[in-house]
Amino acid sequence: MPYEFSMRRRMEFSDTDMAGIVHFANLFRFMEDTEHAFIRSLGFRVHAEQQGRMNGMVRVHAECDYHQPLRYQDELEIRLLVERRGRRSLRYRFLFFKTEDRGVPLTTPLLSARGALAVVSVNRDVGQDEIIPAELPAELLEQIEEAPPELWKQD
Amino acid sequence: MPYEFSMRRRMEFSDTDMAGIVHFANLFRFMEDTEHAFIRSLGFRVHAEQQGRMNGMVRVHAECDYHQPLRYQDELEIRLLVERRGRRSLRYRFLFFKTEDRGVPLTTPLLSARGALAVVSVNRDVGQDEIIPAELPAELLEQIEEAPPELWKQD
Amino acid sequence: MPYEFSMRRRMEFSDTDMAGIVHFANLFRFMEDTEHAFIRSLGFRVHAEQQGRMNGMVRVHAECDYHQPLRYQDELEIRLLVERRGRRSLRYRFLFFKTEDRGVPLTTPLLSARGALAVVSVNRDVGQDEIIPAELPAELLEQIEEAPPELWKQD
Amino acid sequence: MPYEFSMRRRMEFSDTDMAGIVHFANLFRFMEDTEHAFIRSLGFRVHAEQQGRMNGMVRVHAECDYHQPLRYQDELEIRLLVERRGRRSLRYRFLFFKTEDRGVPLTTPLLSARGALAVVSVNRDVGQDEIIPAELPAELLEQIEEAPPELWKQD
Repeated sequence: MPYEFSMRRRMEFSDTDMAGIVHFANLFRFMEDTEHAFIRSLGFRVHAEQQGRMNGMVRVHAECDYHQPLRYQDELEIRLLVERRGRRSLRYRFLFFKTEDRGVPLTTPLLSARGALAVVSVNRDVGQDEIIPAELPAELLEQIEEAPPELWKQD
Repeated sequence: MPYEFSMRRRMEFSDTDMAGIVHFANLFRFMEDTEHAFIRSLGFRVHAEQQGRMNGMVRVHAECDYHQPLRYQDELEIRLLVERRGRRSLRYRFLFFKTEDRGVPLTTPLLSARGALAVVSVNRDVGQDEIIPAELPAELLEQIEEAPPELWKQD
Repeated sequence: MPYEFSMRRRMEFSDTDMAGIVHFANLFRFMEDTEHAFIRSLGFRVHAEQQGRMNGMVRVHAECDYHQPLRYQDELEIRLLVERRGRRSLRYRFLFFKTEDRGVPLTTPLLSARGALAVVSVNRDVGQDEIIPAELPAELLEQIEEAPPELWKQD
Repeated sequence: MPYEFSMRRRMEFSDTDMAGIVHFANLFRFMEDTEHAFIRSLGFRVHAEQQGRMNGMVRVHAECDYHQPLRYQDELEIRLLVERRGRRSLRYRFLFFKTEDRGVPLTTPLLSARGALAVVSVNRDVGQDEIIPAELPAELLEQIEEAPPELWKQD
């Protein structure tokens, strides 16, 4: 389905902090990694340099709600849902399901966190500072749909 | 003033990504570091282990809006404002002002990002998994006030 | 074979810095993640808490030589080799082979970096500061062999 | 003195891992930050883009020996010493002294880790892949001396 994408990831030792759980800021990296894999799965790149021009997607908003602590060796399924598809911007929702608790598979995945990212497509001539909003490639946009909101509003 | 706290921080090379700007997830680390310095300035610690018990403040919500790209060697003033003081939780707002642009001082600091963190006070017996909500120390709470909302709603 | 272990990993956007390549410090995370996966593959954990005691392996030495820049979307095969198996310590060598160059498979993997880690087995009673050297579990050690040195001395 | 430079840094919560100590890979970030501050103190930058060309210093070797665990709120003095000054490369040694133990000042700073970095000066035309070795600016080199080896061999 062109409005969702999933990726699995094991929580590593270096993801944890001295409270014994995964440091909260890491979930933003995990969201971004999932977004990049989603765009890659459609044959495009979030960040590319070609013909003296850098194309990218700058983040304008990021958020996360934490429901359950994540721990070393937990396995997550990170589910990306497209909330909004604009000509120059995309907004994603993310659901973090724990599928293994410290190495032990869970029969029912546990919704452990929810997140969102809003990104804007930009160009920058390499060697220049100025970042200019740009339309997303039509060939990318036509592959993307918006997900039904009930998908990320589930409990 | 007991409802605000400021810290300066220079953007380091390792804070950047290949787009040539500070990676967005780092601002969550910067918020947390500022929160820890604020609590330390009041004579307390966000995370402490004593008498077989770990006291901490788990993050339940984090968000950030990015207005201006931050670059290597920029200097930031990160301003923390207490939005809400509960008996078991605190909610902070953060304003990221750029005070130096790649090493050159700005006459007017530039509001480059805004963030928020919501944290809940918890206890955990060391060696145990269970995390239990706990009241914040009275001696800490009585030093903290809520900031006037116009302070973080400024442009 | 009980003296080697391999893991694949794609270089993520957040692994890069403004020089457009993977930040050098990240390779130490990649080594550690590979070590943890190796120990996990043998049915053990690098870090465990049980019966009021924390068992872990502290790092006493780490090093890396960088031969080729790693870039966004490169895929690596990270090969761990056991250099020395002691009763209380292990020393590992790591070879970083680039198997995909920015998404394009390489017919011959390219040796891009070499690393090493030396770790010592320790115990700590939870809630205590003191870290005490400890023997590695016999059931773990008997599964591990030392690799022939020519394996990590290859060009 | 032109062969040494020092910087203080407090260990942050996000620097720690679930073993309750600073994650070993972070010391490589701390070395690099100190190197950048050293070069900045001499009026130069480790990484600069100008006139369509990127000048930087790629890392070719990094290592660290860990003597004492570093903990949350420890304050470090990180001392850089120039081991070797070449026309195209620099080699640094680093000593990590703990000056505060979890917030309590130590009367005698404790040598907690030793590190080294070797860096090579390079150019890259922006938008190009090829990284070309380059001489370091003469005005930078003439400010730098090599430190007496006994300075980093101390106990």
